[in-house]
Amino acid sequence: MRCEVIAIGTELLLGQITDTNSAWIGEQLALAGIDSLYQSKVGDNFERMVECIRHSLTRSDAVITCGGLGPTQDDITREAIAEVMGVPLIRDPEIGERIRQLFESRGRVMPENNLRQADIPEGARPLAEMPGTAPGLLCPVGEKVIYAVPGVPYEMRTMMTGSILADLRRRSGFGGIIKSRILRTWGHSESVLAELLAPRFKMLDKAGNPTLAFQASGIEGIKVRITVRAEEEGAAIEMLNAEEREVRQVLGDYIFGIDGETMESVVLDRLREKGLTLAVAEITSGGLISTRLTAIDASGQVFRGSVVPVAGAVRETVLGIPHDAIGTAQAAGGMAVAAREVLGADIGISTTGLHDLSKPSELPPGTTFLGIATDAGTQVEQVCLPGDRERMRQYSVINLLNHLRLKLRD
Amino acid sequence: MRCEVIAIGTELLLGQITDTNSAWIGEQLALAGIDSLYQSKVGDNFERMVECIRHSLTRSDAVITCGGLGPTQDDITREAIAEVMGVPLIRDPEIGERIRQLFESRGRVMPENNLRQADIPEGARPLAEMPGTAPGLLCPVGEKVIYAVPGVPYEMRTMMTGSILADLRRRSGFGGIIKSRILRTWGHSESVLAELLAPRFKMLDKAGNPTLAFQASGIEGIKVRITVRAEEEGAAIEMLNAEEREVRQVLGDYIFGIDGETMESVVLDRLREKGLTLAVAEITSGGLISTRLTAIDASGQVFRGSVVPVAGAVRETVLGIPHDAIGTAQAAGGMAVAAREVLGADIGISTTGLHDLSKPSELPPGTTFLGIATDAGTQVEQVCLPGDRERMRQYSVINLLNHLRLKLRD
Repeated sequence: MRCEVIAIGTELLLGQITDTNSAWIGEQLALAGIDSLYQSKVGDNFERMVECIRHSLTRSDAVITCGGLGPTQDDITREAIAEVMGVPLIRDPEIGERIRQLFESRGRVMPENNLRQADIPEGARPLAEMPGTAPGLLCPVGEKVIYAVPGVPYEMRTMMTGSILADLRRRSGFGGIIKSRILRTWGHSESVLAELLAPRFKMLDKAGNPTLAFQASGIEGIKVRITVRAEEEGAAIEMLNAEEREVRQVLGDYIFGIDGETMESVVLDRLREKGLTLAVAEITSGGLISTRLTAIDASGQVFRGSVVPVAGAVRETVLGIPHDAIGTAQAAGGMAVAAREVLGADIGISTTGLHDLSKPSELPPGTTFLGIATDAGTQVEQVCLPGDRERMRQYSVINLLNHLRLKLRD
Repeated sequence: MRCEVIAIGTELLLGQITDTNSAWIGEQLALAGIDSLYQSKVGDNFERMVECIRHSLTRSDAVITCGGLGPTQDDITREAIAEVMGVPLIRDPEIGERIRQLFESRGRVMPENNLRQADIPEGARPLAEMPGTAPGLLCPVGEKVIYAVPGVPYEMRTMMTGSILADLRRRSGFGGIIKSRILRTWGHSESVLAELLAPRFKMLDKAGNPTLAFQASGIEGIKVRITVRAEEEGAAIEMLNAEEREVRQVLGDYIFGIDGETMESVVLDRLREKGLTLAVAEITSGGLISTRLTAIDASGQVFRGSVVPVAGAVRETVLGIPHDAIGTAQAAGGMAVAAREVLGADIGISTTGLHDLSKPSELPPGTTFLGIATDAGTQVEQVCLPGDRERMRQYSVINLLNHLRLKLRD
């Protein structure tokens, strides 16, 4: 069963709006076991919409058009689908009545042009769900089908989960379920991971179930996705667990979390388990560590706070370290110790680096010092970070949090 | 001149990553006066990629493929383009050398499979810009052309602005120039802006040059984009200046900056002009203000630093304010004053709100207090912020920075 998505709207092509609907629909289709091999965007142009829908129907069994169902003159998806079906538009009095009631229920008078939304291709069925004034449509084309949904995400999702996915699964005759799990890794490039897991890939390719795939997530590392097909939930979870064990045997501590976990959520969890508190003094990262930690609701139990001591005087008066403690290994160590003591935490961490200094240095650009102070002593990692200022800042955070994660493992 | 965009990657179809590249490219093409009538997504599948690129070339003069240039086995955009061109892949020793050097410069050893990235279709030209290990390619197909760029946004953008847009403009033979300017506004909804500017839109619609368009940018406000066509640079800039004056007469102080300016860059500039320094104590925003300020290179001259006093003891020991100074107007005022005094700045600002408290309150959820302390005294704004925790955090920042901007104007 193949289903394509066509996002409709000139504003999408002009980049005034980013099309997030297609990605969401694609994810739902994948989880329903339906292949979505192509997705397209086309503007509010009759000929091009017709061409696009026809072309999609040549290579897929179903097409979901998203957008162009509004009341204005440039909303012509209904007309384009009628053209593809080779039928006229017919006004559906029931839909017209539902639209009128919707306006009344909001205490507004319906502009006449909204009745355009009640004109549907002959032979099309309106979907049961109608959260807005735009009816969703199920339009048979021989053995194939076009579903038309509005571009408003909330309305589109209501119709997808309400009737479209169910209808597609009925058509596909697929009984089982598909589940996936993300293993989040940090520290290896995608190509190194590919080399390490090559034997596992080879073994799985034979059966084709489970499958492994990589997803880059920028400086946040590489995700390894396990996907399984099974008859029912329990069996699927068993397969996921078994495959996760296999992958963990290869990647070990390079895996920092699964699914929704982030580096900071994992670090906070480990600190909480050990009953430890954390304080931060960050110059290179300039507040990023604190921002990421405080984004997590329960962080307050573990995270005491942070200081961003940009000015030398602040380093002296607030942290009690020398005015010129910046951009060196000693500075990183001193900041971590000071954060721990001044903010009253079990662990203090710090970032400072070359680009925090105005003076030149013999060290390579991007050199950054990451400090971790505990009651057992202080440790400073010297790393050389790639990219521009912003990428260095980001790298310093993920890098330091990962060092802390590994330290907490012991 | 028609140019299509094909985003390549199974993860895009599965919705594991949202394709934001196509929207950005579409915007750049529009600003360069090049039509982008279709955009597509296709997975890492040889036949389908070839089919997709061929189909696009039947209806457009140029195709930009985005993604699939990595080193792993499923990165096969190079192979697909070679098939479309009807040529073999040839290893380019120069590119191979550049990749090896890139790894060395990061102190890492190049995995052999990275050399796959040096295999390019015979007759293809590598682009001058190569910010990562994936070379961008210019691939002639008769009179038409395929540009291949990596999916990594920062690498893709470097190549687009570096050589591709210029090459497309050359091919399009468009003599004149198109220039645009963004006026960044904050404080009005798009519909209010539309009402205020309705007369201006009506007047411009007649001539069609300049044009005005809105771009939402979430909580960062609404952008008003002015676009002009002219024979040469000077005339274009004159037109932009004239139209900007018109729009400013209507929107006045709701415009906080132009083009690349951000709320924080504008605030820092105003502080610098007045020779004032800034310090921050942030709970609700948890480090976001500091993160945004320190992202700007020259911020160090103006920004003294910040404290994120999550734990009550930190508020006492570091800021010298009461343990329970949190989540109230008095707390916000006290934090702003303390930030100013303890960090030694001319101006102190602060954020704290209901969701910083565990206790219940009669105030509506989302209530947040924004403090500004100067030698002239302390002012606290009470605002009620919409959305979830993260949106409240973000809102508190833009809201407070905008208050500070308006205060500095006087």
